[in-house]
Amino acid sequence: MSEDYSLWYNELVKKADLAENSPVRGCMVIKPYGFAIWEKMQATLDKMFKETGHSNAYFPIFIPKSYLSKEADHVEGFAKECAVVTHYRLMQAEGQKGVVVDPDAKLEEELIIRPTSETVIWNTYKNWIQSYRDLPLKLNQWANVVRWEMRTRLFLRTSEFLWQEGHTAHETEQEAKDETLLMLQVYTDFVQNFMAVPVVQGIKTESERFAGAVDTYCMESLMQDGRALQAGTSHFLGQNFAKAFDVKFATKDGGLDYVWGTSWGVSTRLMGALIMAHSDDKGLVLPPKLAPTQVVIVPIFRSEEQLEAISVVASGLLQQLNELNVSAKFDDRDTYKPGWKFAEYELKGVPVRIAIGPRDLENSTVEIARRDTSEKQVISQSEVGAEVKHLLSEMQEGIYQKALRYRDQHITSVESYQQFKEVLEQKGGFIKAHWDGTAETETRIKEETKATIRCIPLDQEKSPGVCVYSGKPSEQTVLFAKAY
Amino acid sequence: MSEDYSLWYNELVKKADLAENSPVRGCMVIKPYGFAIWEKMQATLDKMFKETGHSNAYFPIFIPKSYLSKEADHVEGFAKECAVVTHYRLMQAEGQKGVVVDPDAKLEEELIIRPTSETVIWNTYKNWIQSYRDLPLKLNQWANVVRWEMRTRLFLRTSEFLWQEGHTAHETEQEAKDETLLMLQVYTDFVQNFMAVPVVQGIKTESERFAGAVDTYCMESLMQDGRALQAGTSHFLGQNFAKAFDVKFATKDGGLDYVWGTSWGVSTRLMGALIMAHSDDKGLVLPPKLAPTQVVIVPIFRSEEQLEAISVVASGLLQQLNELNVSAKFDDRDTYKPGWKFAEYELKGVPVRIAIGPRDLENSTVEIARRDTSEKQVISQSEVGAEVKHLLSEMQEGIYQKALRYRDQHITSVESYQQFKEVLEQKGGFIKAHWDGTAETETRIKEETKATIRCIPLDQEKSPGVCVYSGKPSEQTVLFAKAY
Repeated sequence: MSEDYSLWYNELVKKADLAENSPVRGCMVIKPYGFAIWEKMQATLDKMFKETGHSNAYFPIFIPKSYLSKEADHVEGFAKECAVVTHYRLMQAEGQKGVVVDPDAKLEEELIIRPTSETVIWNTYKNWIQSYRDLPLKLNQWANVVRWEMRTRLFLRTSEFLWQEGHTAHETEQEAKDETLLMLQVYTDFVQNFMAVPVVQGIKTESERFAGAVDTYCMESLMQDGRALQAGTSHFLGQNFAKAFDVKFATKDGGLDYVWGTSWGVSTRLMGALIMAHSDDKGLVLPPKLAPTQVVIVPIFRSEEQLEAISVVASGLLQQLNELNVSAKFDDRDTYKPGWKFAEYELKGVPVRIAIGPRDLENSTVEIARRDTSEKQVISQSEVGAEVKHLLSEMQEGIYQKALRYRDQHITSVESYQQFKEVLEQKGGFIKAHWDGTAETETRIKEETKATIRCIPLDQEKSPGVCVYSGKPSEQTVLFAKAY
Repeated sequence: MSEDYSLWYNELVKKADLAENSPVRGCMVIKPYGFAIWEKMQATLDKMFKETGHSNAYFPIFIPKSYLSKEADHVEGFAKECAVVTHYRLMQAEGQKGVVVDPDAKLEEELIIRPTSETVIWNTYKNWIQSYRDLPLKLNQWANVVRWEMRTRLFLRTSEFLWQEGHTAHETEQEAKDETLLMLQVYTDFVQNFMAVPVVQGIKTESERFAGAVDTYCMESLMQDGRALQAGTSHFLGQNFAKAFDVKFATKDGGLDYVWGTSWGVSTRLMGALIMAHSDDKGLVLPPKLAPTQVVIVPIFRSEEQLEAISVVASGLLQQLNELNVSAKFDDRDTYKPGWKFAEYELKGVPVRIAIGPRDLENSTVEIARRDTSEKQVISQSEVGAEVKHLLSEMQEGIYQKALRYRDQHITSVESYQQFKEVLEQKGGFIKAHWDGTAETETRIKEETKATIRCIPLDQEKSPGVCVYSGKPSEQTVLFAKAY
């Protein structure tokens, strides 16, 4: 990890059976173990969405080309790199093996595979919303989307990825703004309390804003190599899409007005954040709340009889853990040695390992080890349930605190552009600096250093100063970083 | 329903807020209420898949065109009507508004949007399977697929649909066959016990077999208009895909052999079956186990004070039902009258309706009504929990038995082709008849009557006879029907 972070990440994703590249350019295969983690993330988020009054629905994967052009900024942002369906039939190749595109089956209007669904959804909302009685409309969909990427990395940037996209419609500007911030908070709770990754909440600059939004709010997290990763965004759309798709409603006082909108999403990119935020040279470190298997029991035995005796103990422990809602498994395979299994479960990031050997049988003990600190202790078998609960909760909190310390140590305030560049190169992390608020300065800094403005943090007092680059007056500091 | 079944179905799907057509040809929007039912189906099936040892994973939506051709039958079946991605970029149209396809961004090899994923998955399995230790491999994915359809109907036949597809790999032929039948049984349990729709298990004739399978097993159900609907299929693939994608494994005894495979799937088509099997002129009839809301409480009041007093009772009932794991809601909107609400919840298929009015307040009673039979009774408030549980379970069983009676009354054995045609036109349903086993006879009957062989039922004794069409010798009877 310390030698080549990027290589370490790629190897870890593959070796821990999380995902791999597919032969289709830029697309990944999410392997069963990786998908089991994603499923836990999905289930948790889905529950949080429903608890905040959202329902799921499903909209078509295809977007007619002309829809993209209806919102001027949106088409700028999304029409460039996308998968275009032009034909709907293949035919036997004449005089050769295989199939070719049937030229007679050309679509009148090309279809784009959704890079995001605002256009197709607002086109539908037009028919669903007539009156204030139809509002608010708070929907979410879990879906695959495609953005044609030239440089891809597993989970972090792939041409096809899985995500959820929320799309809501409201009577008033204030309601839509409240919804935008509510979902930012839901995401923050999830990322911090389940993924154990601390985030900075902020607002994007104009150049980093979602194409078609009035304001884009974001959570920015920091990886162990000092690079930032945008963990999720929540957009206040104003009336932009309502105007583009003519979505008006009869107001309470008998008028007619355009609807106010929001959209918000997180994706399989979060898997990348989860992996990079906590893992180490031995492999994955998973927060207990998202680990598919929280406890593994490994028997250490030389004879069949020993294995049988250990199995009796193990099955008692499994039952006990099961009753405590802890997901545990007993790996009694005789095709692998205990040492191999230890390494395997460290690689897979199983939070707690319990080993039971002949001496433990004699003493009614087990050896219990936690993944994050590698601490081991021998405890009585009767203490296992309580100790596992204790370790899982301590580990969930412990890896969060560790990531938080790292993050806090890597927010550096700088006063000069020279210092900016030094910190960026030598220390990395977030750089807190005054910025004059112009896109020109932002672009120049990006071109010269590859650092971008990650966000204007929400949680700060405005304090005037001078821009670290231009020396012009500045109202507030922003966070710069190199980012994934 | 009795006047125009097809129109009744379309109207019901739209009015009950289940789904609607999107402006994109052949694609549907699944609305929140429809999706809530699908989510319950998904959750139930997913649990059953996991209990039978399957894990979820995710494979790319894109299939390189050449993959389709690797399995000769498969390409025949699936290469015809499919969405073809030929380009990966749009550009500003010169001198006009909007965007056009960038001719420079043409893909070297076209990509097909998966109509099913055998090819991309077996291409991946090649890397995952080396030895018998890697087997069995039992994966499932929940995904969207696209088959370009010319005539579409909401849920029953759409160009894009949602489904799950299981893909398993095994050491031996027997294991793969067992898996095929196991999944047929899992599907059957689900459709009968949760959807309350009786099915006939059978095997498809060669002409109806999945393209690339050795054998296709199916469940056939019967709708209330006497047409059959294929509710799900489970395919024994033999070594066909292993050979096409060169997936070999080191056997236990040191040899090298091709892997044996299966695949199986059910889709949002099941929503169509669910709707058509039970509903009536008043709207949806949902099996309690899949109803998003199982009980609705409607207050009947003239004054604020009455509503307040009813609300106290209702909230006590809600809590009680909640503790019994019954999903219930209290509709206290004052913008709609009770009569409107009654009709609305009948349309939506909510299994149990509880009405509370002023007289009920005096007598500590409620009026409780079940959706399927419209039976109403007045019971004491203290009996509500027990009565709701009783009604839900009785209704789940009742609508199954009703559908079973209808189905059994609509399996008609015929001895002559004349009788065949009469039954088909006048009564509909399944026609049980001897068939000579030739594709020629099958095709002629289909051309002349539009009836197809739905399946060769598994649960029958072989009994020789003569073919209803050709008069040639026949080994067994098969089920014919007009089908969705």
